[in-house]
Amino acid sequence: MKLVGNAVVGQSGGPTAAINATLAGVIRGVLEQREEGTIQTLYGMHNGIDGFLREDLIDLTKFFDSEEKLKLLEHTPAAALGSCRKKLPDPAKDPVFFESLIELFKKYDIRYFFYIGGNDSMDTVAKLTAYLKDHDYEMKAIGVPKTIDNDLMGTDHTPGFGSAAKYIAVTMQEILRDCAVYTIPAVTVVEIMGRDAGWLTASAALGRTVTGLEPDLVYLPERVFDLEQFMDDVRCALKKHPNVVVAVSEGIRFADGRYVGEGTQSGAKDAFGHAYLAGTGKALELAIKEQIGCKVRSIELNLPQRCASHLASKTDLDESVGVGRYAVKCAIAGISGEMMSIQRVSTNPYEVTYSHTNVLEIANKIRKVDGEYINEAGNHVTDACCEYLLPLIQGEAEVLYEKGLPRHINLR
Amino acid sequence: MKLVGNAVVGQSGGPTAAINATLAGVIRGVLEQREEGTIQTLYGMHNGIDGFLREDLIDLTKFFDSEEKLKLLEHTPAAALGSCRKKLPDPAKDPVFFESLIELFKKYDIRYFFYIGGNDSMDTVAKLTAYLKDHDYEMKAIGVPKTIDNDLMGTDHTPGFGSAAKYIAVTMQEILRDCAVYTIPAVTVVEIMGRDAGWLTASAALGRTVTGLEPDLVYLPERVFDLEQFMDDVRCALKKHPNVVVAVSEGIRFADGRYVGEGTQSGAKDAFGHAYLAGTGKALELAIKEQIGCKVRSIELNLPQRCASHLASKTDLDESVGVGRYAVKCAIAGISGEMMSIQRVSTNPYEVTYSHTNVLEIANKIRKVDGEYINEAGNHVTDACCEYLLPLIQGEAEVLYEKGLPRHINLR
Repeated sequence: MKLVGNAVVGQSGGPTAAINATLAGVIRGVLEQREEGTIQTLYGMHNGIDGFLREDLIDLTKFFDSEEKLKLLEHTPAAALGSCRKKLPDPAKDPVFFESLIELFKKYDIRYFFYIGGNDSMDTVAKLTAYLKDHDYEMKAIGVPKTIDNDLMGTDHTPGFGSAAKYIAVTMQEILRDCAVYTIPAVTVVEIMGRDAGWLTASAALGRTVTGLEPDLVYLPERVFDLEQFMDDVRCALKKHPNVVVAVSEGIRFADGRYVGEGTQSGAKDAFGHAYLAGTGKALELAIKEQIGCKVRSIELNLPQRCASHLASKTDLDESVGVGRYAVKCAIAGISGEMMSIQRVSTNPYEVTYSHTNVLEIANKIRKVDGEYINEAGNHVTDACCEYLLPLIQGEAEVLYEKGLPRHINLR
Repeated sequence: MKLVGNAVVGQSGGPTAAINATLAGVIRGVLEQREEGTIQTLYGMHNGIDGFLREDLIDLTKFFDSEEKLKLLEHTPAAALGSCRKKLPDPAKDPVFFESLIELFKKYDIRYFFYIGGNDSMDTVAKLTAYLKDHDYEMKAIGVPKTIDNDLMGTDHTPGFGSAAKYIAVTMQEILRDCAVYTIPAVTVVEIMGRDAGWLTASAALGRTVTGLEPDLVYLPERVFDLEQFMDDVRCALKKHPNVVVAVSEGIRFADGRYVGEGTQSGAKDAFGHAYLAGTGKALELAIKEQIGCKVRSIELNLPQRCASHLASKTDLDESVGVGRYAVKCAIAGISGEMMSIQRVSTNPYEVTYSHTNVLEIANKIRKVDGEYINEAGNHVTDACCEYLLPLIQGEAEVLYEKGLPRHINLR
């Protein structure tokens, strides 16, 4: 017998260009089963679980009364519901927290809980599932992945990654052309997001099989960064042509574990204890200036990597909607404590199917770039890597413009 | 009687997303008069006047044998011919340099000289014109404007500016949404290009009349920057809402003339004696962290501002082609020593016409943001400013994509 009641959906962690497409997918999934009537009202929690605790909710089933609104949501960057970075306490240590949460679920008759987020959000779903198991309240808790970093286990790739990868690949093509206009030797260091996994930085090489233009060198956090070897690599590249472009992950580290960008930073940490990074490119810029002495500059691609929805990948947006819709189907079918995932059936032609994995296998783990995707010298990616990545950036978002600016939607 | 012979075109200074559209305009202009036969061959100089001196030329009339190639050129970022930053010597002091230049003009029977560039390129056209006046070689020298900075005199706006402004306006919309997802107080400082003029930074406010979303504060180099007043402005904004976004020009200075970003820089200067800037946003980030203590980050929009052709303004691209084509018509009509310009006929509806101005009135001068476009407090732009800017970002470039990446053209 199906569990009848209401549902709630939240967004957590850093936003992406596709996280709202996943939200739209969940809304579509709920609207599509409305006649059948298993899920009646879908609430959206503003600012994740934090907002839920404040009962800061929106009735999404009521708000999304047109296809146009759903389309706008799919092309709106950043978490339309707002986000939070709250790490839930251990249920064994702070049962009171969970008791008040359950009280709220009861109050709104929430029987389905959808949490769209990354690694840390899966931890939330895992803790909630563990608590529910031992307590008398039936609710299905589902994790829906999103992260530009592509570093979640149990899925071929993450919704949100393809759009960030496309932004990086396209921007890199434009930067490569810009850097090629002068004839004096110059090095451009492009710093790309990715604390522990180099997937985004690897995407900088995607021109290889399409335009033939790619950075000279690519450094990922999966390999130890050696400054001396780096300088040799750069000198060697400068001998081939005057305009050297280097892509580096923000998270590259020296053999002793220190981040390359650490020297230029305050050492601040976020709520999850992650070191706050910035300045990897700047640190390398200064080192090249000192050791090689040629013209050098650094570019930090920064926030647009995760919010440039005007350049989203259509493949990514379609899959992000698909995985959200699939989450509703799974929940109604009785699945709980699982993260929805994308499985690749084939690369040529590109084909995927949706599946799910226990959140315990995902929470607090990191999927790094496969060894076979990095070249032996550790200063570039392999053709196999480009082959894996290329399908994810295919197609362009159909952005609606009004007076020269993209149209977005407001949920407040 | 018309001057019959060949023509040469070059690109100089920093590239833009539309400088190749202007090159395409010059090529179109030459192709369109081919039957009439005034200009026979159009040469392109690789890397500006530097390449011309090395006789590094390409026959553009031969290369551009299809409409498709011209369309691709119009959507290719950065100077397709390559660029240079050479400042010509004073003709009175180094006549030998000009003699060798004239020898080359004679060798290739160059009777038309088109130089696409900014302020410093107009200086090249001015010096050449001055030299030709006193020497027995007839050649028409025409300056064709381009610069993302919009800081040239004698034109309503510069080709290349509209696309950069659109990139900034769209990216600012996306950043504003990204910054709004959390509820904890945070300041984001966005550093925008513009050494002496704040036109690009002003474009960050373009959402005002379209989406209602714009940065809380905007600081241009036209006004003296006061750190104490800035902190007061930021504190005041933080009282209104938690996510404060500030747009600053890289070139803002303190009352004593020092650049705000100077402290974090090496003081290096480019070939024209311009101070090399970077780090204005970073300097303000550190100052806010110290004086206000809230979460703060800085984003330098960097190179994509001038090379993001995937987000070019259609209005800008069309006008850039138009001004290149107009340059050919003017040259054939006997005009020389002039910079082509865009004159605004009306804003509502937006309508422009092409004209020209003596390069002497342009070279080495800077057009700053009008006083009426900056608010009294000096921390934002006025509605009149948005009204002036908005028509320039209208329409989207029809970018051709292949396997997920934009198609560009190579002239080498």
